[in-house]
Amino acid sequence: MSANAPSPDCPLCREAGGILVFQAASWRLIRAEDANFPAFYRLIWQDHVAEFSDLGAGQRQACMEAVCAVEQVLREALRPTKVNVASLGNVVPHLHWHVIARFDWDSHFPNPVWGASLRELPEPAERRLPLSLQALDQRMSQRLQAL
Amino acid sequence: MSANAPSPDCPLCREAGGILVFQAASWRLIRAEDANFPAFYRLIWQDHVAEFSDLGAGQRQACMEAVCAVEQVLREALRPTKVNVASLGNVVPHLHWHVIARFDWDSHFPNPVWGASLRELPEPAERRLPLSLQALDQRMSQRLQAL
Repeated sequence: MSANAPSPDCPLCREAGGILVFQAASWRLIRAEDANFPAFYRLIWQDHVAEFSDLGAGQRQACMEAVCAVEQVLREALRPTKVNVASLGNVVPHLHWHVIARFDWDSHFPNPVWGASLRELPEPAERRLPLSLQALDQRMSQRLQAL
Repeated sequence: MSANAPSPDCPLCREAGGILVFQAASWRLIRAEDANFPAFYRLIWQDHVAEFSDLGAGQRQACMEAVCAVEQVLREALRPTKVNVASLGNVVPHLHWHVIARFDWDSHFPNPVWGASLRELPEPAERRLPLSLQALDQRMSQRLQAL
């Protein structure tokens, strides 16, 4: 079995891993459904590889240009305080990049989303965004289609 | 003032930000001195830009190929359980990539280094590495020189 054959125990080989926003040949973009961080996307590499450096140079470039496009759409659409990008995979070692719009008002800012919560919001975070998540997904899809 | 002129209030414009391991024209690699995560490097972009997407396409590629090289050295030298890569910058919005070797025995694994600690080690984590941090720094420097 090749190192990147689907792994039966891997949730990202078995399922989309969130709301599927865009499917490319080598990767997909999903939106995580996180009430605290509504503009939270994940670019998931299609093959079951653990590390960024398991990709070839051309794959790495394609991967990060797609991550960058997701970041650009977040910036243009939401004007976030910061964008957080991370490939961790300690629990699910199947390459995926978190791309998260962060706001100075969000529950954890400036802590990472994996850190301690610092405040509670009086309303769902999603309501503070200037457009709906459906509209944001659509912009993502359009932008990624054009890559 | 251009958007990427040094910012007087930015610690990563003023100081190295850790032990300087390698200085390239557009970025530098430092080792963070973190007792829990001794093999913790940061690739810091030289110009004061906040986001990955503030770089041009060629800069992004050079940046991530350097990040990848750091990851490769960590994998070859340490055989970590996982490598974690992240660009957050919520506190210091000057582009830097954390590249961290993680081990199933480390204080936080599988939590992110920014999450909750799960165990205390009976000895300094550095002693569990198969080579000294000085030797690791040297391998990093040699590898990055060859890029």
